[in-house]
Amino acid sequence: MSGEVTWSELTSQPDAQRALIARLLSGALKLPVSLDDFDEILLLGSGTSYYLALALADWMRRRGRAARAVPSCEVLLDPWETRESDTRRLAIGLSRSGKSSELILAEKKLSDAGFVTLGVSCTEGSDLLRVSDHGLHLPEGYEDGLVMLRSFTSMLVAVQWLSGTAEDHKALAQLPEQGAALLANQADAITKAANAREFNRFVFLASGPDYPLALEAALKIQEMSISTSEAYHSLDYRHGPKACADDKTAVVIFALSDREHGLSLARDVKDLGAAVIVVGQDAAAYADVADLTVAGSGVLSAGQAAALSILPAQIFAFATAMRLGCEPNAPTNLSKVVVF
Amino acid sequence: MSGEVTWSELTSQPDAQRALIARLLSGALKLPVSLDDFDEILLLGSGTSYYLALALADWMRRRGRAARAVPSCEVLLDPWETRESDTRRLAIGLSRSGKSSELILAEKKLSDAGFVTLGVSCTEGSDLLRVSDHGLHLPEGYEDGLVMLRSFTSMLVAVQWLSGTAEDHKALAQLPEQGAALLANQADAITKAANAREFNRFVFLASGPDYPLALEAALKIQEMSISTSEAYHSLDYRHGPKACADDKTAVVIFALSDREHGLSLARDVKDLGAAVIVVGQDAAAYADVADLTVAGSGVLSAGQAAALSILPAQIFAFATAMRLGCEPNAPTNLSKVVVF
Repeated sequence: MSGEVTWSELTSQPDAQRALIARLLSGALKLPVSLDDFDEILLLGSGTSYYLALALADWMRRRGRAARAVPSCEVLLDPWETRESDTRRLAIGLSRSGKSSELILAEKKLSDAGFVTLGVSCTEGSDLLRVSDHGLHLPEGYEDGLVMLRSFTSMLVAVQWLSGTAEDHKALAQLPEQGAALLANQADAITKAANAREFNRFVFLASGPDYPLALEAALKIQEMSISTSEAYHSLDYRHGPKACADDKTAVVIFALSDREHGLSLARDVKDLGAAVIVVGQDAAAYADVADLTVAGSGVLSAGQAAALSILPAQIFAFATAMRLGCEPNAPTNLSKVVVF
Repeated sequence: MSGEVTWSELTSQPDAQRALIARLLSGALKLPVSLDDFDEILLLGSGTSYYLALALADWMRRRGRAARAVPSCEVLLDPWETRESDTRRLAIGLSRSGKSSELILAEKKLSDAGFVTLGVSCTEGSDLLRVSDHGLHLPEGYEDGLVMLRSFTSMLVAVQWLSGTAEDHKALAQLPEQGAALLANQADAITKAANAREFNRFVFLASGPDYPLALEAALKIQEMSISTSEAYHSLDYRHGPKACADDKTAVVIFALSDREHGLSLARDVKDLGAAVIVVGQDAAAYADVADLTVAGSGVLSAGQAAALSILPAQIFAFATAMRLGCEPNAPTNLSKVVVF
């Protein structure tokens, strides 16, 4: 079957998280540095790993840390990123393969500029783990497929846990069970929604901690099905980009914390003729206006639910690739690792 | 002629900047607050004004200030943005019309949370100037057309000047003359390049201070010609999005400060079959690989040249709208002001 590897890796995510959380609970997996020792934390990666960096920087900022995300390339290209400073700076580099040239060069440059460097990767003995001062190896996220799925959520959950509170741990521990339930109960409905019309444009709208997930979701569709996809801060969509919406557009809204504004946005999109799919902890509240809702259990906060909230978009992207006869294991123009 | 108002406003930008700079030089236009009185500066806007906020936050950070940009909607939807703090916080709201509901509500919310608020608008007596603690009115940026062009560069140059150094002033004072030269000498070549193929996908790649301009450029094409357009941090394009590139794709690269990486990126894009247009201060160095280069004079830094660097993308977007028979004065689905 086409897409076999990708689908198997997609659906293995709850199991990967279960294994990861077991290691975290046992204390076998620890941060090799104390975040309290730093005034500033820079998170970096490329492509999906950059969106992961954005999600983790947001998570850390909400927990009181001065964290910021940049694409690896900016460290190479923009001298401002490696400017002198007398603050204590930590750089956390994220890469599934640990081989991406941009990240390896960036970690060296950051180290020269006085940053302590930590590499997070799913591949044992990778260059990233070798060149960084410290390494965090997450084999649970290793993938054979080309598109990052399990690696994204594994690195996400591990770093969330390691920079989170006891309350966060309690919440994150629910992810494997909830993810398995979502796959069992909703994958068919999501696949059906992806096949409901001849969609050729995909838009993902989100706010707060969900915004990096919208970026990642848009990239999944691009990579797997070579389709036009975009991501915006939720209400910003009305300030220009909605000009392109029509009845072949699928708009996925990550349910907003403010239900009134969320429903008004969903109605606006619906009026443009687009199909509306709402995902996330409060999705059920959109049942009257949406074509499909994929709701969480409601007990996790948006950030805590991230590894769960991205699942419907991954399934939707996979189903779209199948509908369009694309092979998600081997997308056009792409290689698994970008090396200079 | 179709697009008359838009074209006239587009080409009036050097004159608008000349008038603005005369007022700045005379001391008639001043910031009503001292930025030194604040520990943190939040810049906010929607759509084009959000990209303006990103450009100005970047400008201020490089000049040592703790500045950050958010879309107006995030202040409404994300309680974290208005969390309690004992730091002295300034919010700068940006809006051409000064009527955008999201921004008006956001300014009120920020004020309640203890921010001092400053509204920047091109429309006299607008709601924004009324609800904010302080106002900055820039009539030079006022527009009749629907798409933000002159308002974007007017608000950009004014706030850059008012938060810049004496050296910045010297550089910014060159913008009117250089802008007029670009329009006189290069508009035809850019229009020809936009008509060279039946482009249906547009990609803008930039790094450092140019990145917000890439976002704004992508939005111009979307709004004016209802086409697919995307923006990425320069080298990040190779980590996924390039999957969609083909011979109907036009890629505009904002020349990178690192010429070697820039040329390598341009060659990669060319290999995908896409057309390559390079703009910016170092564009001439790409002459061998690009389909068209639009170079600046080379004496301005990337941030200082921003109002100049966006011009080729505005012209390209206008020409594309004309080619596709769209009316840039009245884009589909859009209104001049987004009001709830």
